[in-house]
Amino acid sequence: MNALLTDLYQLTMAAGYFAAGKTGETATFELFVRRLPHNRNFLIAAGLQQAVDYLLDFRFTREEIDYLRSLPQFAKAESDFFDYLAGLRFTGDVFAMPEGTPVFAGEPILTVRAPIVAAQIVETYLTATIAFQTLIATKAARIVEIAGGRGVVEFGTRRAHTPEAGVLAGRAAYIGGCIGSSNALAGLKFGIPVFGTAAHSWVQAFPTEREAYLRLQELLGEHTVYLIDTYDTLEGARIAASLGRPMWGVRIDSGNLVEVSRAVRRILDAHGFQDARIMGTSDLNEYKISELMAAKAPIDAFGVGTDLATSRDVPNLGAIYKLVELSSSSQRRYTAKYSEGKHTLPGAKQVFRYADHDVVGCSWECPACTPGTPAVEALLRPVLLGGHLVAPLPDAHAARSRALESVSKLPGALRSLFDAKQPWSVQYSEELVSLSERVRKGQTGVSS
Amino acid sequence: MNALLTDLYQLTMAAGYFAAGKTGETATFELFVRRLPHNRNFLIAAGLQQAVDYLLDFRFTREEIDYLRSLPQFAKAESDFFDYLAGLRFTGDVFAMPEGTPVFAGEPILTVRAPIVAAQIVETYLTATIAFQTLIATKAARIVEIAGGRGVVEFGTRRAHTPEAGVLAGRAAYIGGCIGSSNALAGLKFGIPVFGTAAHSWVQAFPTEREAYLRLQELLGEHTVYLIDTYDTLEGARIAASLGRPMWGVRIDSGNLVEVSRAVRRILDAHGFQDARIMGTSDLNEYKISELMAAKAPIDAFGVGTDLATSRDVPNLGAIYKLVELSSSSQRRYTAKYSEGKHTLPGAKQVFRYADHDVVGCSWECPACTPGTPAVEALLRPVLLGGHLVAPLPDAHAARSRALESVSKLPGALRSLFDAKQPWSVQYSEELVSLSERVRKGQTGVSS
Repeated sequence: MNALLTDLYQLTMAAGYFAAGKTGETATFELFVRRLPHNRNFLIAAGLQQAVDYLLDFRFTREEIDYLRSLPQFAKAESDFFDYLAGLRFTGDVFAMPEGTPVFAGEPILTVRAPIVAAQIVETYLTATIAFQTLIATKAARIVEIAGGRGVVEFGTRRAHTPEAGVLAGRAAYIGGCIGSSNALAGLKFGIPVFGTAAHSWVQAFPTEREAYLRLQELLGEHTVYLIDTYDTLEGARIAASLGRPMWGVRIDSGNLVEVSRAVRRILDAHGFQDARIMGTSDLNEYKISELMAAKAPIDAFGVGTDLATSRDVPNLGAIYKLVELSSSSQRRYTAKYSEGKHTLPGAKQVFRYADHDVVGCSWECPACTPGTPAVEALLRPVLLGGHLVAPLPDAHAARSRALESVSKLPGALRSLFDAKQPWSVQYSEELVSLSERVRKGQTGVSS
Repeated sequence: MNALLTDLYQLTMAAGYFAAGKTGETATFELFVRRLPHNRNFLIAAGLQQAVDYLLDFRFTREEIDYLRSLPQFAKAESDFFDYLAGLRFTGDVFAMPEGTPVFAGEPILTVRAPIVAAQIVETYLTATIAFQTLIATKAARIVEIAGGRGVVEFGTRRAHTPEAGVLAGRAAYIGGCIGSSNALAGLKFGIPVFGTAAHSWVQAFPTEREAYLRLQELLGEHTVYLIDTYDTLEGARIAASLGRPMWGVRIDSGNLVEVSRAVRRILDAHGFQDARIMGTSDLNEYKISELMAAKAPIDAFGVGTDLATSRDVPNLGAIYKLVELSSSSQRRYTAKYSEGKHTLPGAKQVFRYADHDVVGCSWECPACTPGTPAVEALLRPVLLGGHLVAPLPDAHAARSRALESVSKLPGALRSLFDAKQPWSVQYSEELVSLSERVRKGQTGVSS
């Protein structure tokens, strides 16, 4: 149902492949990033579930086809082409890293092998879906790492790039290690824990701050989090303390969080609420949380909004989707691109993860087949075969567990907030290097 | 249908307002930005159509209500509350600036006056929708301005924060002045011109570059744009030239665009194709286009992707939605927030635009009613009254015309890429300042 959600050139190329009699050719495309972004020593793969949902539902509506027919770019397209589009479904294969897997530059996150027209059209959607959630899961992993065990909640829907992106930001942040999201729909759709109690407008909506707090406590009991900075934060803390149990604690959303949290802690303690917690919000990110941790600010949980839901310091991931192989009934051709600074490696690949490095090889290689090879995991796994789901995908909880466990095993330097001097080693297999040389010599590809 | 797409705390507050017997109160919220972002001297309002679509369609599904009922935060909510939610519709008023209007810090872009529960719940969706499209329309206006009449096409869906955000980025970029988008669905949904012909994979999919070009020309005729940098850009230009008319021109997507475009221009001219155009792409933005323009690079049109669809240098807009007024059958209370660095002004407002400055006043003011007042436009106009659309909204074409015309009238310094020394003057009316002082003295609001 989403098939028109793509770049127009995918559709003009589709018409061209059709006219050139290429619909029977099978294309293999790989989705990857060329370089890790600034201050990122790894990425956390995410978004596969939405990519798969899209492929399973892929089709053009009659309205979409009529629209294409009306465009000047399709004036010379054959009428048969539109019939072909109307019947087009995704019947190909997809191999992908499970969500929650750490991924590095040059490693395919997802591979599509499908009839060329469909393989081409799905580029735009797949790239955006995987890149966005991978971006946010990665950001979340950084924040969670620096928070050192204190809970991090994703709060950013209102600043996300559309509310719908906010739902998926909540999902991706959870995969990256957050304990949950403020987004209620993300809770329903993905079973993610949801958090949140009241805003400044709640306090303003009552004649007195005390009445606002009391009403909240009546409603939420032990889940009550008082937002204490609407008028005067310390006075807010005193009112909260005066109301007694039950409460979870208080939230501070402005001011110098180090000083204010200390003062609030003293007020809560003085009233006997050593167990009341302090949540810090207010334009936080991993860099600011690092400072709060260094200053030993008595903050028990962090809410992170804008910076997490938009990955503000690295607001996009340069994910690309490149043709690496093309085959018809009679031949297979490996292909690559040699533009200045934008070259690619030919042939479908596999990513082999060892304890301390990765090897990107040709898809048919099998290092584990050689006796004596150290433990190795082939990261790209079959997801769709012939357009059908091989098995239900791991859910967001499983993806989160995989991410948390995998990140904990990475060298400490890679888990810092800044570029590591010694990045994760990603090598290319001899077979892949040799294939690339043969293709380059043939300029546009070698047949085999 | 989207009512659960909100922050959980909007819903816990809703339960609290219900329990406190406040459902009959009418709240007025204003959506605005406190400060203009870095290097932005104005914003272009956009996203109102999607905000209105959401409000008209606002309701909870049974599944959504059952989900809320299952959450621990609602354990103490009254059963009547869930019935109330099931019947909840948006029955309030909305006043807003028309899409395409330049807007400045502190000026409400949109005002909601509605029963407090609905007015509160819609905050998250409205804020994200308006902020995102405003962000992108603003970025587009900057790029279009610096391109000085050369066409700018939005190309960024694959890097947008979800493919669906890419559709709206295409819409917002068009409102900001782009000539169109590569997003085919944006073309269908919003009547926006769509552009695009072929990718590197097209060239790779044929045994020779020449065959790939020939096939494209057969299909697209005068719309043909050859992407000439897959293997060797200058050789690509020579192949394109050798094929003769018809063609629109060529696209260059890598390398030093100044040098390469000059060399390509010479090749095209030498073959008699003075009328063939050159499109430049490759990670462009307003700063790089400014350099290309200064170097007089012979580029006739620009395609801008990532930087435009994500507004990379300013990847979010700090839009906020603040309670300013609360009224019941017996009283009206003005309200504001006095947190450190985050204070707001009370009362529903209007923005009055004069030739060289704006005045933000109370909603009931009428400067034009005073004889001798210079020409003034009240920017916030009724959009929904009692939940019903007052009149169909201007479409994206009308919004684009409004933006282009309005921006052309702004002082030149405000249209530069950097912060103007003399920002647009936004004043507050005497009446608004006086109201604010009265409310502050009353701490949490004054009754009237």
